[in-house]
Amino acid sequence: MSNIHDSAYELERAIRNSTEFLELKEAYDRVMNDPSTKEMFEGFRDTQVEIQEKQMQGEEITQEEIEKAQKVVELVQQHADISALMEKEQQLNVVINDISRIITTPLEELYGAPDEEQ
Amino acid sequence: MSNIHDSAYELERAIRNSTEFLELKEAYDRVMNDPSTKEMFEGFRDTQVEIQEKQMQGEEITQEEIEKAQKVVELVQQHADISALMEKEQQLNVVINDISRIITTPLEELYGAPDEEQ
Repeated sequence: MSNIHDSAYELERAIRNSTEFLELKEAYDRVMNDPSTKEMFEGFRDTQVEIQEKQMQGEEITQEEIEKAQKVVELVQQHADISALMEKEQQLNVVINDISRIITTPLEELYGAPDEEQ
Repeated sequence: MSNIHDSAYELERAIRNSTEFLELKEAYDRVMNDPSTKEMFEGFRDTQVEIQEKQMQGEEITQEEIEKAQKVVELVQQHADISALMEKEQQLNVVINDISRIITTPLEELYGAPDEEQ
């Protein structure tokens, strides 16, 4: 167990010091340090979370909600700092998915890949 | 990125060589190598997955399904090899949750703990 902990903390440090994380942090701080940008970004996040929660609960998304979400996306995509942040989030996401794929290999070998279980 | 990959592969090796994983593998192989035990275990898994999927889709679980699931759980709990496997799964689960908590610390510090976002 101590080997696992040591390796996990080493990985945590590697993430924290990675270009991907440092650039994300910079982009995030830039958005958060401007009140109107922050408000726009948080509005966008709230809309996303709302729709995700409805989808997860199997609730229907209304046409009105879809249009509202599309408008919010269009708005934030035109904002240079927010679209930069979204790009950095996407890049770190790739890294995190990669890590997840690597460290779950032993379990996937044992139980079979998730696709095979369907 | 190469630091992250190196650390992730090191963590993967640490998991693979851990007592928790090796004992899980042993318990899993014991269950899978006995056809009737394997069948009972897979029936239990199928019932679990079915109910989880319904819950995730916000579907109602019928009284009949609840009773069927309870019977299956009672059955497998009485089977020494299967209950041993479930215990080992639970122990590795604790390890995996611990790893996940450690490596997501940088992101939680940046975005705030999930609880604070509610």
